[in-house]
Amino acid sequence: MAGSLMAREMAEQPEVLSRLAADRPQTVEALRVVLPDAPAGLVLAARGSSDHAAVYGRYLLEAHVGRPVALAAPSLVTRYGRVADHTGWVAGVISQSGRTPELLTVAERFREAGAVIVAVTNDADAPLATAADAVIELRAGQERAVPATKTVMAQLAAFGVLAEALGASPWSQADWDRLPAAVQEVLDDPTPAERVAADLADALGLVTVGRGYLYAVALEAALKLKETIALLAQGYAVPDLRHGPIAVVERDFPALVFDAPGPVSPDVAELRDELAGRGARIIRCDPGPGAQLPVPGGLPEELAGLPALARAQQLTVALALTRGLDPDTPFGLRKVTMTR
Amino acid sequence: MAGSLMAREMAEQPEVLSRLAADRPQTVEALRVVLPDAPAGLVLAARGSSDHAAVYGRYLLEAHVGRPVALAAPSLVTRYGRVADHTGWVAGVISQSGRTPELLTVAERFREAGAVIVAVTNDADAPLATAADAVIELRAGQERAVPATKTVMAQLAAFGVLAEALGASPWSQADWDRLPAAVQEVLDDPTPAERVAADLADALGLVTVGRGYLYAVALEAALKLKETIALLAQGYAVPDLRHGPIAVVERDFPALVFDAPGPVSPDVAELRDELAGRGARIIRCDPGPGAQLPVPGGLPEELAGLPALARAQQLTVALALTRGLDPDTPFGLRKVTMTR
Repeated sequence: MAGSLMAREMAEQPEVLSRLAADRPQTVEALRVVLPDAPAGLVLAARGSSDHAAVYGRYLLEAHVGRPVALAAPSLVTRYGRVADHTGWVAGVISQSGRTPELLTVAERFREAGAVIVAVTNDADAPLATAADAVIELRAGQERAVPATKTVMAQLAAFGVLAEALGASPWSQADWDRLPAAVQEVLDDPTPAERVAADLADALGLVTVGRGYLYAVALEAALKLKETIALLAQGYAVPDLRHGPIAVVERDFPALVFDAPGPVSPDVAELRDELAGRGARIIRCDPGPGAQLPVPGGLPEELAGLPALARAQQLTVALALTRGLDPDTPFGLRKVTMTR
Repeated sequence: MAGSLMAREMAEQPEVLSRLAADRPQTVEALRVVLPDAPAGLVLAARGSSDHAAVYGRYLLEAHVGRPVALAAPSLVTRYGRVADHTGWVAGVISQSGRTPELLTVAERFREAGAVIVAVTNDADAPLATAADAVIELRAGQERAVPATKTVMAQLAAFGVLAEALGASPWSQADWDRLPAAVQEVLDDPTPAERVAADLADALGLVTVGRGYLYAVALEAALKLKETIALLAQGYAVPDLRHGPIAVVERDFPALVFDAPGPVSPDVAELRDELAGRGARIIRCDPGPGAQLPVPGGLPEELAGLPALARAQQLTVALALTRGLDPDTPFGLRKVTMTR
């Protein structure tokens, strides 16, 4: 596993998180200079893995900042030329490279329409950063493997920085301090992921599921498995899976279920029972006893997704290797998707 | 095909649309009494098929009303007890039955937090309608087949009524008048859907794709195929499919591509070429020559999704029958998902 670029980039994640935490005071200070005291609303624009980070940000920011959060529909801006009035709004535009033309256009138009723009990117010199009012620099370094890992991890944490700048710290200094070690603990032991990968060697499809803060991780896990292994993996929120798609879960169909102690955990447990009743092959990723993909406990629910994401990345690499695939350059995908 | 409840309920759709159009002036008038002149933002809350209608509403309302539109995350309200300040906002809560406990709670909490609530439902006596400031009554009648059809169709059109009440008519009286006939034209000829179903008899998975207004139809088509046939179908917006998931499209993998003349059509054409280059089995649903699932032309792009939705429903029924399945009661699903 250690030989692939993807695994090497995954291994950098604790350091990336430590750096982001260390930069935090200055970043928050710089953001506060430009952010309004009480935004009318928040909107997040992103694509691909960054869009899953945005789903996480959507929950974190609405819960802690207390203003509604929307996810942007870029085509309205770039294709239909429809730019809503964003007076008093804050727009977070999340792009690993800071060079996706579509997102640069969205940032420029939303700014003209009244929004304060915060770029969340790896490259503080990229056009997106230049077009923004403030930048959260991820400093994750270049991603060379096609499946993004360390940048997504940094993006999740970056929303904690943005929430703090908006006056609502979602977690404590002690939580920030513990986070890199929790991710490191997962990365240090790939055995559980390798065991699950062996069990999934023949799987054609898979559902991933989470609720609340873990929903974004379910989405990102499914994307990693699709783009890297061409597995028909699909991510769901618990109620959405029950609202019809659960029909695809027949005997032995694998279901990767993310959970953490918190108010949605009883819903996840209920769904696990329902999946078990259908004969699904359930793979648990949670801090509880008996989880096939264990993660360290003791983090606040809002942060539980970060070590869980590392497990999902590990499973992706392990499954690629089990199937004789190269996790770094899957299926003719290019690094930057240049959606105009 | 005509024998199933699902097909019979589909057949009612032109009448449902005519009724909604006839009710339109009174509905708009009643809505205008309670709606603010310039909402701070709009938020839509729904689950399942209704949530796909909400995705359509998200594009239509933001484009025409000119204020940002968010899709609600119900668990923030019902599980985390986090209710954002919605002063000056309009919340559309979309539920076929008007009895989903989760959505009723969201409506009540958003109202307490300052939003004007518009219920979009089949049942004007349901708790959701009672809790709302105004109702768009769909009058689609009871849905007895598990896969919802006529209600979803009515919900799409209902967003045109809501947009008009907010001061922005997205389409003309002539468009409203033509709509039922366009859907009827599709329903009158199931042959193309039966032909495609025969071709897909062996398919395990499928991607559906659209952009802009057709994205919601792609999502809904995938859900219908999942819940009715247990096909591993997944719906994507064009850029999202290209951002990784396209890796699952290998030789002969079926791709159902929705399109209509308009600003996103060149993107859809480009994607079709990319899919063809991967050897995909492309099924076109559009008004152009050579489409395997043809739809009538001449409607504005915003309305093109309604006859396309009828085609997707037809394909679902045809594929169920081809595989010896009962489209009305698939896989032990219950009619109302009681997400608390």
